[in-house]
Amino acid sequence: MAQPKIYPSNDSSPASDFGLSPTEFTTLRTSATQAKALAYCPYSRFRVGATFLTSSSDFIEGANVENASYPVGTCAERVALAKAVVEGHTEGFRAVGVSTDISPPASPCGMCRQFMREFVPLECPIFMFDKDGNYVVLKLEQLLPMSFGPDQLPQPGEAGAQGAGL
Amino acid sequence: MAQPKIYPSNDSSPASDFGLSPTEFTTLRTSATQAKALAYCPYSRFRVGATFLTSSSDFIEGANVENASYPVGTCAERVALAKAVVEGHTEGFRAVGVSTDISPPASPCGMCRQFMREFVPLECPIFMFDKDGNYVVLKLEQLLPMSFGPDQLPQPGEAGAQGAGL
Amino acid sequence: MAQPKIYPSNDSSPASDFGLSPTEFTTLRTSATQAKALAYCPYSRFRVGATFLTSSSDFIEGANVENASYPVGTCAERVALAKAVVEGHTEGFRAVGVSTDISPPASPCGMCRQFMREFVPLECPIFMFDKDGNYVVLKLEQLLPMSFGPDQLPQPGEAGAQGAGL
Amino acid sequence: MAQPKIYPSNDSSPASDFGLSPTEFTTLRTSATQAKALAYCPYSRFRVGATFLTSSSDFIEGANVENASYPVGTCAERVALAKAVVEGHTEGFRAVGVSTDISPPASPCGMCRQFMREFVPLECPIFMFDKDGNYVVLKLEQLLPMSFGPDQLPQPGEAGAQGAGL
Repeated sequence: MAQPKIYPSNDSSPASDFGLSPTEFTTLRTSATQAKALAYCPYSRFRVGATFLTSSSDFIEGANVENASYPVGTCAERVALAKAVVEGHTEGFRAVGVSTDISPPASPCGMCRQFMREFVPLECPIFMFDKDGNYVVLKLEQLLPMSFGPDQLPQPGEAGAQGAGL
Repeated sequence: MAQPKIYPSNDSSPASDFGLSPTEFTTLRTSATQAKALAYCPYSRFRVGATFLTSSSDFIEGANVENASYPVGTCAERVALAKAVVEGHTEGFRAVGVSTDISPPASPCGMCRQFMREFVPLECPIFMFDKDGNYVVLKLEQLLPMSFGPDQLPQPGEAGAQGAGL
Repeated sequence: MAQPKIYPSNDSSPASDFGLSPTEFTTLRTSATQAKALAYCPYSRFRVGATFLTSSSDFIEGANVENASYPVGTCAERVALAKAVVEGHTEGFRAVGVSTDISPPASPCGMCRQFMREFVPLECPIFMFDKDGNYVVLKLEQLLPMSFGPDQLPQPGEAGAQGAGL
Repeated sequence: MAQPKIYPSNDSSPASDFGLSPTEFTTLRTSATQAKALAYCPYSRFRVGATFLTSSSDFIEGANVENASYPVGTCAERVALAKAVVEGHTEGFRAVGVSTDISPPASPCGMCRQFMREFVPLECPIFMFDKDGNYVVLKLEQLLPMSFGPDQLPQPGEAGAQGAGL
């Protein structure tokens, strides 16, 4: 894939391609940026804020929550999306915003892309904001091509799985 | 450790030993039990609800959120606690409630005990409710003895870590 | 991304594009396929085998190892790669093979793509075999575009991180 | 639980209580200590080595393998045990050794205790060595009391799970 274009912070035109109003886009960015202040990241010192725009146009925020046992911590995107899910938002997400303190923008890690795969439409835009609000935007299916998803698992009692001798 | 005692649902006396009023105890149980309905668990079909009682006496709920790639999913306790943390509750938790659909009660998995270790006082009670509201209660330090925590990691630039040749 | 081409099992020509001999390709597939028998997957009943071809032309295998607490389990690709790393293979991987019992082929989950990102060259081919040995092949950078990697984290004592108020 | 006793490095008497010969104990410690050199831990700079003594008296080693996305990394104990499992060792483990560069000894994190729970007998000793070879030893059931395990999950098609409305 070619290096994705970085849009300047004052250009909200890509948002409209994904059905977001300028206000929604600005709110998404402000929310993800402010969410960085919620991070608990004494180990990495790498703050991440994330916001999910739901089908009912709610903005649900999260930040990374680390642990002394590093693998036990969790990323901003998973915190925000798990919040959304337990608040009843399990489908139809309209956009995701992710914000960090670096430039060019950081992207969601692979684990978070996979966590999103379960709930977020493949064509949903992921806006990745740098420390100054400039951004890259890609669809989930561009960040996680040929993804592994629920339809690839065997169903309970399915012959295929049993045939595997399990 | 001897098998922990299971208290009947109508006995709230242990709660007072931990400084909870009968109403707080009842609310904790109701919250954790109702939170099960928020679970997304098509793979395990094992619903878990969790509630954290904060130092400001807020009840913060979560449930398990699974993924087609099983290791990518997250447990109820971590969803609820991460929510609490990004809402500003990072210390002084007064109690934790966990509820499942089985009996005797299930306990938090080791990963969740470790996630709690970062924020929850070692003497905080964890109430584990069975399908009928009967329960076991143990302190975090009883569920995770001799725990690994933040003070065991090397500080940035510390000689010990450097001496290890890293 | 367009749907990737599925190559029939008797066509090893793509392997040569990536510098693999026909024998190496065949060994990679046999290894990944046989590794499925090593899986411990009583919960998903979804066996996965994975093999990493190292810079020294060793074939290192793994399979998925699940846990009653689903998020605690680990995938085949991470088992195989962690084995390789602790055996001294930390760079220069020449190819990865992944095999499952379904068709079309399953891909590595996002968490495994991220785990690979730390050690596997972006241009390294990932061969994904279906139940009959037919396959899709993509480079790591195609499976994890615009990846998050080590160079994006702040260095110890770096001003950028400190400036973030952490 | 009272603070566990720290045994000096030249006292191997506790090992015999668990059926290990002095030579086996010494080999376990040497193995876990040397395994630290295999660690990939540029982020935490906290090296951990782990060794599992199998029912066939093999010593299987691992070390921590970290990732730029911290939650994606894996701990020494899980690397070593996953290696053992895919090499056919799924039960009857006789002892576990864990070694770090600090004193007093560090314990396995909760996630690793849970990962062990699936395969390691509850009465199996976990030897935790400090930087000088002094150690604490506890059984798995002492490190993970009232553990969550496989027998608590619903079986496929079980009424209890279905009755939960899932």
